[in-house]
Amino acid sequence: MPRTDGERVVLDLKRLAEFGRYKTGVHRPTYSAEDVASRQWLADKFAEAGLDPVIDGIGNVIGRDPRSARRLLVGSHSETQPHGGWLDGALGVVYGLELARAFAADPALAGLGIEAVAWADEEGHYGNMLGSRSFTGALSDAEIEAATSREGKTLRQALVEAGFAGRPRELADPSRYIGYLEAHIEQGDTLDSGEARIGIVEGIVGIWNYWVTLTGEQNHAGTTQMSRRKDAGSAMVRLATLVHDRFAEIAGQRTSSRTVWTIGRMLLDPNAPSIVPGRAEMQVQFRDTDPDILALFERALHELVGEADRAGPCRVAIAPMSKTAPAAMDSGFQALIEAAAERHAPGRHLRMPSGAGHDAQILSRRLRSGMMFVPSLKGISHHWAEDTKEADIVLGVQVLADAAAAILKAE
Amino acid sequence: MPRTDGERVVLDLKRLAEFGRYKTGVHRPTYSAEDVASRQWLADKFAEAGLDPVIDGIGNVIGRDPRSARRLLVGSHSETQPHGGWLDGALGVVYGLELARAFAADPALAGLGIEAVAWADEEGHYGNMLGSRSFTGALSDAEIEAATSREGKTLRQALVEAGFAGRPRELADPSRYIGYLEAHIEQGDTLDSGEARIGIVEGIVGIWNYWVTLTGEQNHAGTTQMSRRKDAGSAMVRLATLVHDRFAEIAGQRTSSRTVWTIGRMLLDPNAPSIVPGRAEMQVQFRDTDPDILALFERALHELVGEADRAGPCRVAIAPMSKTAPAAMDSGFQALIEAAAERHAPGRHLRMPSGAGHDAQILSRRLRSGMMFVPSLKGISHHWAEDTKEADIVLGVQVLADAAAAILKAE
Repeated sequence: MPRTDGERVVLDLKRLAEFGRYKTGVHRPTYSAEDVASRQWLADKFAEAGLDPVIDGIGNVIGRDPRSARRLLVGSHSETQPHGGWLDGALGVVYGLELARAFAADPALAGLGIEAVAWADEEGHYGNMLGSRSFTGALSDAEIEAATSREGKTLRQALVEAGFAGRPRELADPSRYIGYLEAHIEQGDTLDSGEARIGIVEGIVGIWNYWVTLTGEQNHAGTTQMSRRKDAGSAMVRLATLVHDRFAEIAGQRTSSRTVWTIGRMLLDPNAPSIVPGRAEMQVQFRDTDPDILALFERALHELVGEADRAGPCRVAIAPMSKTAPAAMDSGFQALIEAAAERHAPGRHLRMPSGAGHDAQILSRRLRSGMMFVPSLKGISHHWAEDTKEADIVLGVQVLADAAAAILKAE
Repeated sequence: MPRTDGERVVLDLKRLAEFGRYKTGVHRPTYSAEDVASRQWLADKFAEAGLDPVIDGIGNVIGRDPRSARRLLVGSHSETQPHGGWLDGALGVVYGLELARAFAADPALAGLGIEAVAWADEEGHYGNMLGSRSFTGALSDAEIEAATSREGKTLRQALVEAGFAGRPRELADPSRYIGYLEAHIEQGDTLDSGEARIGIVEGIVGIWNYWVTLTGEQNHAGTTQMSRRKDAGSAMVRLATLVHDRFAEIAGQRTSSRTVWTIGRMLLDPNAPSIVPGRAEMQVQFRDTDPDILALFERALHELVGEADRAGPCRVAIAPMSKTAPAAMDSGFQALIEAAAERHAPGRHLRMPSGAGHDAQILSRRLRSGMMFVPSLKGISHHWAEDTKEADIVLGVQVLADAAAAILKAE
């Protein structure tokens, strides 16, 4: 079994966090000067570990292993959310680096190679998981031409400034890899609030989003009698309550349901205290790893919207906004991650879905993929206060290394 | 009985609408150049009608009648909402002018006088019914010093620019008047959608406003399980639905209820599709002419908020924002307006509350007051498209004149 150096992992994570340090977290948006410098630093570290590094035309940093016959791709993304956490994707990137070092140092693992990777822009500063989508052939040049940051800078310009423009974009060769492994902080408090130290990800949820629009009639709140009103706000709160109740009913019928749903955004027009709202909008979202469950929720939502529209007095319409497919993690990989977790933290591991999106959901379309979580203190994520106990960081990298070795030896 | 000249009334209204004309409506905010010019024009018209006009230190235009022994004050406000309607308050001001002319022309009415008035800023560009409150002694110098427009101009500066600063503010002498009469467009569609052409106002509603604040816990919409959430948005839509249901139940127990309630403003924080809302706020308003009914609604609202707070998981708090007292119109005046309406439009008149605020609610604290409505086409108000059939304008002024004569003769 490979022997990882937890202390070295923590030191590398701390060094990486210096690029764009903000309070106890990091501000390192994709293609910023700090991000570009950190990618160069990672490429140098990959080289020190005996890999051939390349930073490609979208900013992915890939450490090729020219010697091994069987290879596992291991990593995550290295940029951060604005004023985000110091671990997040960086943890998985440094885990990949450490696995490469541990494998190279162990003669018993000769011929079994780790290729480390730091994907670009999983966090979506310019687009949706640009790096992993580019690597799997799911990012077109046209999309690159059209992409801009929230501040209005074009992706094309950002790539020029970063020095990545004009380089080829690396493409996955499925025959080159046994699979892909990614570690990440949990970003929730399921692990932190319980006894388990390692999460074995069963799948990454699909996220389905809808706009529901209610059209009534804007009126004076003093002179319009109740019987004559078409109050879009009143219709919205009633429909939203029914949606919450019906969804809870569906979820309650499944034991140990992990489905989540959220009405996180609502708009009233004109949103003034003395005007009967003429228009209301709400965004309904639900997530699950099971496409059948997602379809069940969608059907229920359409039924409720249809009933509300027929009942009147407001018109109710629904439009899908975005639907990502759930991504199942490889069951063989899950078993081997679980076995490694059981070896180092007996009884203190948990199979769970990922409620957030990750590069592994993109990679899983081309490669067998596995994901592992370490706890997030208080579940804090995408905030500079995000943190994980050092002991959990150290435990995690050893579990991942053991799992990687088992996966590479398995066939 | 006085004989009014409907054609002259319509011509004067059209002339007055030229000050700040906007499409088929008027844009004439209080103390704007157009408003100041229109007040001077009104003062000149009052003088032509044989009255002694004064424009006082807050912009009220009052036409004194130096000859009569018994006097009725008749008018409304003359500024408009931004891009508002051409009639609104202007209708009642020109009716006051026409009544003064009709009474002066009729020897049978000698000794009975009409004093016409155009109040300043009922529409609240700088404050809450400034003109009528000033006239009734309910506007302090301190409030004048503190008042500003939404654009940040101080009331003091606006009065200087208007040329009104430094003038005394006229004060009501209750012994001078039998009472106050105000005509206005209905601003709703109760008259327009039925057969009645004249509304006899029984009272002006009290308006009670509350902020309800729900505090939960902001969380990631993917990684936070439903059982662990404290979703302030979900709690708000549930509470709002209960409020609508309970209020409808209370109103339903009273036959021919005219109570209205509105949740016109809602805020979610942070109002993002993938974040469980940590905080939600809604403004609850209800209106009625009966203080007992208002108290009943208030008690129900407090009960529902308390129950929601105790049930959890979110904390729910309520704070009153503003509560205006309902104002009853004088019952003797109502009877005489109704008798006049029956004379000119047999069976086509209706007793009704005013769901909107009017200067008459302020005047009613010092003088016996009465109000009369003419129909608003489609109930449109506070919009340049507001209009009233010419026949209704002509009918209204004659009914008001008859009523005024009856009131002045009554004691």
